[in-house]
Amino acid sequence: MCRWMAWIGQPVLIDELLFKTQHGIVDQSLHARMGAEPTNGDGFGMGWYGTGDGPAVYHSVAPAWGDANLRELAGHIESHLFLAHVRAAIGSPVQQTNCHPFRSGKWLFVHNGFVAPFAGIRRDLSMAVDPERYPDIHGSTDTEIVFQLALTYGLEDDPVTALERTVGLIEATSARDGTSGTVQATFGISDGESLWAVRYATNEKARTLFGSSSVETVRRLYPDNARVAQMKEGDRLIVSEPFADLPGVWHEIPERTAIVVRPGGEWELRPFKPVAPQRRPAVSQYAG
Amino acid sequence: MCRWMAWIGQPVLIDELLFKTQHGIVDQSLHARMGAEPTNGDGFGMGWYGTGDGPAVYHSVAPAWGDANLRELAGHIESHLFLAHVRAAIGSPVQQTNCHPFRSGKWLFVHNGFVAPFAGIRRDLSMAVDPERYPDIHGSTDTEIVFQLALTYGLEDDPVTALERTVGLIEATSARDGTSGTVQATFGISDGESLWAVRYATNEKARTLFGSSSVETVRRLYPDNARVAQMKEGDRLIVSEPFADLPGVWHEIPERTAIVVRPGGEWELRPFKPVAPQRRPAVSQYAG
Amino acid sequence: MCRWMAWIGQPVLIDELLFKTQHGIVDQSLHARMGAEPTNGDGFGMGWYGTGDGPAVYHSVAPAWGDANLRELAGHIESHLFLAHVRAAIGSPVQQTNCHPFRSGKWLFVHNGFVAPFAGIRRDLSMAVDPERYPDIHGSTDTEIVFQLALTYGLEDDPVTALERTVGLIEATSARDGTSGTVQATFGISDGESLWAVRYATNEKARTLFGSSSVETVRRLYPDNARVAQMKEGDRLIVSEPFADLPGVWHEIPERTAIVVRPGGEWELRPFKPVAPQRRPAVSQYAG
Amino acid sequence: MCRWMAWIGQPVLIDELLFKTQHGIVDQSLHARMGAEPTNGDGFGMGWYGTGDGPAVYHSVAPAWGDANLRELAGHIESHLFLAHVRAAIGSPVQQTNCHPFRSGKWLFVHNGFVAPFAGIRRDLSMAVDPERYPDIHGSTDTEIVFQLALTYGLEDDPVTALERTVGLIEATSARDGTSGTVQATFGISDGESLWAVRYATNEKARTLFGSSSVETVRRLYPDNARVAQMKEGDRLIVSEPFADLPGVWHEIPERTAIVVRPGGEWELRPFKPVAPQRRPAVSQYAG
Repeated sequence: MCRWMAWIGQPVLIDELLFKTQHGIVDQSLHARMGAEPTNGDGFGMGWYGTGDGPAVYHSVAPAWGDANLRELAGHIESHLFLAHVRAAIGSPVQQTNCHPFRSGKWLFVHNGFVAPFAGIRRDLSMAVDPERYPDIHGSTDTEIVFQLALTYGLEDDPVTALERTVGLIEATSARDGTSGTVQATFGISDGESLWAVRYATNEKARTLFGSSSVETVRRLYPDNARVAQMKEGDRLIVSEPFADLPGVWHEIPERTAIVVRPGGEWELRPFKPVAPQRRPAVSQYAG
Repeated sequence: MCRWMAWIGQPVLIDELLFKTQHGIVDQSLHARMGAEPTNGDGFGMGWYGTGDGPAVYHSVAPAWGDANLRELAGHIESHLFLAHVRAAIGSPVQQTNCHPFRSGKWLFVHNGFVAPFAGIRRDLSMAVDPERYPDIHGSTDTEIVFQLALTYGLEDDPVTALERTVGLIEATSARDGTSGTVQATFGISDGESLWAVRYATNEKARTLFGSSSVETVRRLYPDNARVAQMKEGDRLIVSEPFADLPGVWHEIPERTAIVVRPGGEWELRPFKPVAPQRRPAVSQYAG
Repeated sequence: MCRWMAWIGQPVLIDELLFKTQHGIVDQSLHARMGAEPTNGDGFGMGWYGTGDGPAVYHSVAPAWGDANLRELAGHIESHLFLAHVRAAIGSPVQQTNCHPFRSGKWLFVHNGFVAPFAGIRRDLSMAVDPERYPDIHGSTDTEIVFQLALTYGLEDDPVTALERTVGLIEATSARDGTSGTVQATFGISDGESLWAVRYATNEKARTLFGSSSVETVRRLYPDNARVAQMKEGDRLIVSEPFADLPGVWHEIPERTAIVVRPGGEWELRPFKPVAPQRRPAVSQYAG
Repeated sequence: MCRWMAWIGQPVLIDELLFKTQHGIVDQSLHARMGAEPTNGDGFGMGWYGTGDGPAVYHSVAPAWGDANLRELAGHIESHLFLAHVRAAIGSPVQQTNCHPFRSGKWLFVHNGFVAPFAGIRRDLSMAVDPERYPDIHGSTDTEIVFQLALTYGLEDDPVTALERTVGLIEATSARDGTSGTVQATFGISDGESLWAVRYATNEKARTLFGSSSVETVRRLYPDNARVAQMKEGDRLIVSEPFADLPGVWHEIPERTAIVVRPGGEWELRPFKPVAPQRRPAVSQYAG
């Protein structure tokens, strides 16, 4: 179980949304309310777009609430688009290479949930990753394999379709005991301009996911709120669980739904429908 | 480049060989003399047999010379058989899951050297690992894959033959650019009773490896040496480079040679001859 | 807020009490029930007596629940007397030098609670530490200063009296704003033979502390319990909160009380009465 | 022994000077040439001025050469004035609170060298720190005490004079065995506008320190050098040892000398003369 958040809009000090917000993501690392677990202390990661080439990532194995460097960075880095993730490990080791966001070129990827039974199908899924990309696998999480599969299936052209194929592949892949793969997920993806998010679970209730209303709406609801007054046209947040308790501000993203937020803050929702790939990747013969 | 050491013999405080020995392995983490690099500061690991079920492993990402916990453990843990390893990373991340020794059941495995071009053949080698063992891969080093392949090829029955098949497989595996795999290695293996070591390189000079003479010989050479006086029948050391400068004490293990040290300290040498496996493990079809 | 445990009795694998016990100390790192906070994820420490000279300490900044090395050590180290501590930092940094137990010679010291207002009186308390001991201060916690003061006041001769003087000194020391010092504490102390514990708070309810009944009592209560069957004459536990839900097994240590458990398991309780030291340590003149 | 560097001038990606420069500070962490030790692997720190309030600091216990986060930050943070420091610990623990730069308000401070015999005089020096500042001491290094003393003696008004008084105090403070304090140091200080540096040793040769020539000079010397072509009016570097081997570019700062570099790149040198403070801070009476 994990929690994540994404910001798109005017450039802000990351601090504003990590530490200065009521029940922000760092608070959720210690006191998540809607997650499977209240504690998300198995590492932290954030990725942001701004100065320098492509997105930067900061990965830490320390719990977010106690990471002195994180406070420093948040207070001194400004970004118009960033993702932050607090991790609750399920089995895989607490190490930087298992921290989200995962990155490829200009793309960032975060995930809250799991693939099951991962150990049973990890090898076949890994084999389905484009061989050219196999050397990019540095950690041991299900999320990294999901990301590499999505890249294999064209995430850079169409993130949602690529994830539909990826989830379709996972559901079509069976462990040796016959158990077929299942996915529990909210995904967050960005290329530095737009933001994509998906809420989906194969056969249980999906993890929560919320989007913030348009600035106009928020202003109308809270004309006197100081923070709201600072909001600009096009600012949007996508979060695992609402930060502040502001009725009317947070839209729950429906289950089995994908959302894309464009620069300027417009968003579109569409159904998320996994598709089993035409050709199953060969279950590699084993000759040992 | 790394350095490692192995002890087999009377139970000793690990301290005696890690910190109290002239030019011991911890000193080699900072000032290796015979290695490709003088500094081996990218993590430390040790595995020992003693109290509790099977071997214990301690993995640290801190340089050995500065790890306070290591000093504590070394000073308070006694073992009749242990391996210690200081790491100099070549590309792969500094994380506990990349620290040696690697373990499977009662077996421990350390490696000084590399597989090249690893990125190019990592996928095919990973595919050749027994699928049942694939979920045991937690890190991203070449050594872990070598160990899993050796297990796949019967290390638990015959370590040297299994490594000959493993090295044979690597040399028979070619990267997409046609470059065939090469191995640079000294290996250390134990099951808690015996100790195996291999020195081999496909086509360059192999990393150095030394074994200590029999206690009788050492006693004859240094009748007045206080440390030598403490030695008991059957004590043996296998090391990447000699600890103390004691002429006559250290035998250089020849290139392309495997050695086994049995309980009691007897050792046998035999040639190490890689064998390409009859059946090449299927290069898994890619269906992306 | 923290949680700690101490074992005295037959040699046991530390594992038995850290991981294999229902609601053991590692579980309390994630789900404490009686503490000020459910989460104690700001580092772990244990100290044990066994092989080697004096007690060993292992200090980790990783949350106990996710520390792979801790599982290894617990499963392979046996001790007849050890203390373990999970930390929830209040202000001071998460670093090994702030992890409990603190050690001096053969003595170990753990603390659950705080000294307030620590920042305001830290300097004067540090000045009251025996100058010979000042260089032994390596961290920045209130607990370390409490320990050094207790050593200054004769902990090695009489731990309880030394702590009564230490707490007396703290309560007699006022911050510049006139606020006088207060102490919230359970303390655990050992010299490798006996175990001392104190429960005390200046003016609020003290943190919880429990001792396990004599083996005879426990056996009478749970004749059929497998774990109980393994208990031996003289085994005792002192814990911040009960492990297993076994009515009758856990005695709550009263407030303002000190307890000593002798080898063999006999224990004595006595009132804990802070005494302001005859001579206040000079509040050092400041000449800046 | 440590190594440090400071940049003042046009805003640059930190990367340019940390990783992309020949024999930059990160290279010096592994292969220092002029230091007491070639290896500076006991932690890294940098402090920079730019976005956000006051300077940011990043402290890491990982060796600089292997810190993935450092590469990320260096490649995505731009600054017109920053200091970076690689540490070789002498006794004190490897922890973030012992990493340079130390910070107070807008001030940053780095040090290469040591105070001796530090353990012997640490208490008296700590007592001489303004009591209001005592709670700001979080680590256990000599450098942090030097910085707090300099702040006590007016660093914020006149850094060099404050350091002359600080060094004077240290030299005037004797350990219990009568050994008087000595200082081995290069210091780097900044308030975000100017840069101060000091080279001084009580009675041995001081650590090396160099400043880069004016842009005009460098341009004249290397008209065709691509990197030089990017330099702007007022760019200056102060470094423990020269980066590139460019004869004529690096001025060795003389011993017992202080230098100030003003915005625009003008610098002035002045002798550095320690002054024992009028009033010795009271050696605090001990009443234990």
